[in-house]
Amino acid sequence: MQSEHRNRILKAQSEMQRRGVSRMFIGPGSNLFYLTGIRAMMSERIYLLQLPAIGKASLLLPTFERLGAEDSGIDAEIIEWSDATGPDAATKAFIADASSGTVGVDDQLWSAFLLDLQTLAPKASWTKASMIMQELRSRKSEAEIKLMKEAAAIADKTFAELTQQKFTGKKESQIAAEIQRLLLMHGQEQMQFGIVGSGPNGAKPHHEASDRVIQPGDSIVLDFGGTYKGYQSDMTRMVVVKDGSLDPEYERVHDIVNQANAAAHAAVKIGAACEDVDRAARKVISDAGYGDYFTHRTGHGIGIDVHEHPYIRQGNREVLDEGMAFSIEPGVYLPGRFGVRIEDIAICRENGSENINLTPHSVTIVQ
Amino acid sequence: MQSEHRNRILKAQSEMQRRGVSRMFIGPGSNLFYLTGIRAMMSERIYLLQLPAIGKASLLLPTFERLGAEDSGIDAEIIEWSDATGPDAATKAFIADASSGTVGVDDQLWSAFLLDLQTLAPKASWTKASMIMQELRSRKSEAEIKLMKEAAAIADKTFAELTQQKFTGKKESQIAAEIQRLLLMHGQEQMQFGIVGSGPNGAKPHHEASDRVIQPGDSIVLDFGGTYKGYQSDMTRMVVVKDGSLDPEYERVHDIVNQANAAAHAAVKIGAACEDVDRAARKVISDAGYGDYFTHRTGHGIGIDVHEHPYIRQGNREVLDEGMAFSIEPGVYLPGRFGVRIEDIAICRENGSENINLTPHSVTIVQ
Repeated sequence: MQSEHRNRILKAQSEMQRRGVSRMFIGPGSNLFYLTGIRAMMSERIYLLQLPAIGKASLLLPTFERLGAEDSGIDAEIIEWSDATGPDAATKAFIADASSGTVGVDDQLWSAFLLDLQTLAPKASWTKASMIMQELRSRKSEAEIKLMKEAAAIADKTFAELTQQKFTGKKESQIAAEIQRLLLMHGQEQMQFGIVGSGPNGAKPHHEASDRVIQPGDSIVLDFGGTYKGYQSDMTRMVVVKDGSLDPEYERVHDIVNQANAAAHAAVKIGAACEDVDRAARKVISDAGYGDYFTHRTGHGIGIDVHEHPYIRQGNREVLDEGMAFSIEPGVYLPGRFGVRIEDIAICRENGSENINLTPHSVTIVQ
Repeated sequence: MQSEHRNRILKAQSEMQRRGVSRMFIGPGSNLFYLTGIRAMMSERIYLLQLPAIGKASLLLPTFERLGAEDSGIDAEIIEWSDATGPDAATKAFIADASSGTVGVDDQLWSAFLLDLQTLAPKASWTKASMIMQELRSRKSEAEIKLMKEAAAIADKTFAELTQQKFTGKKESQIAAEIQRLLLMHGQEQMQFGIVGSGPNGAKPHHEASDRVIQPGDSIVLDFGGTYKGYQSDMTRMVVVKDGSLDPEYERVHDIVNQANAAAHAAVKIGAACEDVDRAARKVISDAGYGDYFTHRTGHGIGIDVHEHPYIRQGNREVLDEGMAFSIEPGVYLPGRFGVRIEDIAICRENGSENINLTPHSVTIVQ
């Protein structure tokens, strides 16, 4: 990927020139990983990539991070600091050239570091680096899409094996732990979230996994994802526990949500606006009389972050382009009763939406 | 804990008055959890607690977070926004009173949100909320220390069971997965890190866990921690795999690091400076001729965050007070050969250091 990283840095610089951003400061996290391949965690020890619109990058980092940075093969001047000296002098030297102009700062950088930078460069005008980075990151390369498909395949495998197991009598949290075990066993590095919303808990869109014991007749929202080689999976499917009395409205709602999901996929094309995709899903649900129960946006971009640009929501006129990757996840939530959500990751292609989650949308019956 | 949270808010406000901070903006994360008990994750959806120096708090949050916030019992005005409307109007209304004065911002808040706040309140002067929060958070209450001891007890149990298992022939990553399984089984919510540094990998202080296969005669750095009811554990112990040829210098280095650990514990007392504790550990290692191989600070505060104030490092004159909790983790790293680190969490008490990690410091021999 080294030449891919070099290309990304050149593209970022060309975008910076176009938009009049003189330099960017990027912290450990998804933007640093995207531009350099370096995996580092944001912490109290200051660590920054400085990318000027023209010229060579530089890195400010704690001594013990030096090897990891050099392993990436990045062509950058490295300014390091140690616990013994502290970061102050090194930071001052690092930022010396950034005294003015429009400077982009990583959206997810901790505010404490931005305040330090603002003190050291009081004449600079600060803006969000996402202005530059979202242009690049929202359009996935084929290499990135391949990794996202591998992440999604692990989720498919996990779902298939999970639903062979017994659900009745287990706590939601036990099912979540089993999802984690399967994701890791099949090669993901980390589970990022594991929502198990059984029965009435399914009606809370951001419920995680509780001590509730699963009963026959429960419908269950299973929404989980994790990281594979730096890229995220995210899929939601519905299961129903057999031998109980399922809510009589369940099948109708499931069918409507599934139609809404299909309508959103059908609205995906190069040149369509994000809000058009949202509207397509929302119309199906509203026409069926459940509009008040679809309480969130239709989707979010995904890649190195679980949530990133583009956001598939009302009012977002951003236009879809080839290679954009985002969730399509309409839902209907009937308080106190149940919820239904069906979620795929769509890639915007020349001929429309490519769905990378291969698990069928139909209800899976479990024991 | 509701009355404990009310007290914390009152203490924060009194500290703000004393230091001339007119209000603070706190994002989802450890400061929000400390002040209110609310558990929320930082995401692209703006979520802020506004705490004025005098008067009632207010919350800006996405609609679906409202219930979780109300469950905390917090006495605050709530301004909510939905995916349909977006956050702009709500954020403007929320910040209306913050147009000037010195405003504290959560150190870990994403910079994108700070830039938004700075645009909406251009006359305010921004400072780090840690100036207020570290005063409070670094002194743990007995209720907090109880949770930290429970977290530590789970780490002790995990170490005891782990070291009954076979190490030879396993990958470091398999041992890390087993640590995770045991931490979760014994009641932690999440593993935060699991370092398994075998043989020469132990000489890299921030090595995590690789595909290296563990051999007889390896010494192994095991440094792991996770979260229990919102509080962190963090402990490092050494194991040696039997039936191989251990590096002849190992036992001497282990003994010196252990003495350095003891010297740091002995330096802990109310009124001592953080740098004094660091110096005590460093002196033992330097006097033995290994000073160049102890490349990091002696420790870090711990509580809701794995790393927080106070930092036990050279040059930090901050003074220890009753209830402060921090790691003592001297180490010696011989490149290409092995490393030794022994880490406890110390609580500063009236009569000195209380070590909450009960696993012995001696080498544990494993198969």
